[in-house]
Amino acid sequence: MNNFLSFFTPKETKFFPVLKQLSQVSIRASELMIELLQNYNHETISDYYKLIKEEEKKGDTLTNKIFDDLNSTFITPFDREDIHTLANKMDDVTDIINTCAKKIMLYNPKQIPASTLQIAVVLKKCTIAIDKAVQELDILKKNPKNVKQYCKQLHDYEHDADDVYENFLIELFENEKNAIEVIKIKEIMSELEKATDIAEYVGKIIQTIIIKYA
Amino acid sequence: MNNFLSFFTPKETKFFPVLKQLSQVSIRASELMIELLQNYNHETISDYYKLIKEEEKKGDTLTNKIFDDLNSTFITPFDREDIHTLANKMDDVTDIINTCAKKIMLYNPKQIPASTLQIAVVLKKCTIAIDKAVQELDILKKNPKNVKQYCKQLHDYEHDADDVYENFLIELFENEKNAIEVIKIKEIMSELEKATDIAEYVGKIIQTIIIKYA
Amino acid sequence: MNNFLSFFTPKETKFFPVLKQLSQVSIRASELMIELLQNYNHETISDYYKLIKEEEKKGDTLTNKIFDDLNSTFITPFDREDIHTLANKMDDVTDIINTCAKKIMLYNPKQIPASTLQIAVVLKKCTIAIDKAVQELDILKKNPKNVKQYCKQLHDYEHDADDVYENFLIELFENEKNAIEVIKIKEIMSELEKATDIAEYVGKIIQTIIIKYA
Repeated sequence: MNNFLSFFTPKETKFFPVLKQLSQVSIRASELMIELLQNYNHETISDYYKLIKEEEKKGDTLTNKIFDDLNSTFITPFDREDIHTLANKMDDVTDIINTCAKKIMLYNPKQIPASTLQIAVVLKKCTIAIDKAVQELDILKKNPKNVKQYCKQLHDYEHDADDVYENFLIELFENEKNAIEVIKIKEIMSELEKATDIAEYVGKIIQTIIIKYA
Repeated sequence: MNNFLSFFTPKETKFFPVLKQLSQVSIRASELMIELLQNYNHETISDYYKLIKEEEKKGDTLTNKIFDDLNSTFITPFDREDIHTLANKMDDVTDIINTCAKKIMLYNPKQIPASTLQIAVVLKKCTIAIDKAVQELDILKKNPKNVKQYCKQLHDYEHDADDVYENFLIELFENEKNAIEVIKIKEIMSELEKATDIAEYVGKIIQTIIIKYA
Repeated sequence: MNNFLSFFTPKETKFFPVLKQLSQVSIRASELMIELLQNYNHETISDYYKLIKEEEKKGDTLTNKIFDDLNSTFITPFDREDIHTLANKMDDVTDIINTCAKKIMLYNPKQIPASTLQIAVVLKKCTIAIDKAVQELDILKKNPKNVKQYCKQLHDYEHDADDVYENFLIELFENEKNAIEVIKIKEIMSELEKATDIAEYVGKIIQTIIIKYA
């Protein structure tokens, strides 16, 4: 049932280029988020949001293409499920970056704490690790070592993001006495942290694929 | 594996009437939510909540019936999965309307903004579109055109709800200075918006069913 | 496809002892949460958090063991899916207890309401009911009566937790005028309530297993 060859038949490999495009979109979205945070003010925010929104739309188009192709390709349901979940969660990273940018624009917080930039830098590292892992999916059978290493990195980055987030929460509740600003900033930061959680989950999906097929 | 005939065998069609009842329950719940919002005050709220709760229970009973029937019917696991997911998400729409009504009752906000009614009206349109799509599931093979149209509507309605929700957030943070009221109203409104997200997702499930079977 | 014998072949029964260990971890985590709440102050909290975190790590190790074993065992995909979901959700109970303990430590609320302890006591009952149900999974075919009873209990306990949570919300919004404390306490309490939801969901997964295999 778990045919370890199946991942390398032409039917499945046609999904690889689209998955690579999807990871490139995530990298670009995370870079834009870093720029947004470095230049945050009430004038620049809507321009950056538009740029991130464009990436989010590209991600949606690519994911829909994968879903349509999966539904019209005669591959085993289990391969289908794996590719479906992988594409879906990879796209979720971009979606959450987009949601975060939208919340910054709509909530219009007075200031954005420095820790948001710290976590966005970690998030960019995550999207690069996912991209590298996806680049090597097609040589998974020959050499799974590198891919395993990228998944390990994703796990470590999520840990880094957790540490930043925890210190952020302690400081926020100690120093910010305006409850409405607490609501705004906590939610914005929580989105960024969630994006690193999803990135780690992408790593877990890839690890499962390694166990099943490599 | 994806037998496009399977959706029309007696084993599967027996689920259609229950799915129709489920969409009727959602319509009724969304209508009650509109009435609740039009007549909101601390006296009426618990009566409306009770009525919505009754619909939620009806929805649960119908969904459980579908699950039990699915588990005791010898249909292919993929058809089972599709019907299971469809019923589950259709019922989630009613569940979220119920959660929203409960929060209004428990949180007891001073005022409810007009945008809640706007989004509830969009939500009613969503439940009607789902109902129409489900009505035609059994003629999906002969004529998928209408069903595709209803799914397109669900996508557009979700967009409408998003616009209302975004304007609501901007206004809320500009005008409401009482942080506790912000917490209450934001959560209530967020539930209504989430219900339209789920309704759109029901449309996506139906679109997948069209691709696989029609 | 749904071979009711499959749950009792040596391939599947090897998962039972690990599932039992997993439910024991949840019991211990819920007991530590009760102690944490009974002794809450800014000095003790970090010690209790460390102890709960250890249980969370044990749960992760056990769940990963189950996942790895599942992926390398030739069992039917449907049995795999059921065991996977069951282990995952059982572990979620411990994860949420851990998240709750972490939030208490990071948020550092001035006081913790008595209702948190009430809900933690219900949660302990839930973990015990899950443990009893899992203990009897291997005699499910001979005697599903007890297991059904434990699932019924999980449903009732979730109801109890809901009642406590609803009264808590009404009181919180009536009495707590510090919005930042509202944010903190509401989130902490919400985690505990969510843990009982997940426990009830574990019961539903087991009920599905009974219908499919027993």
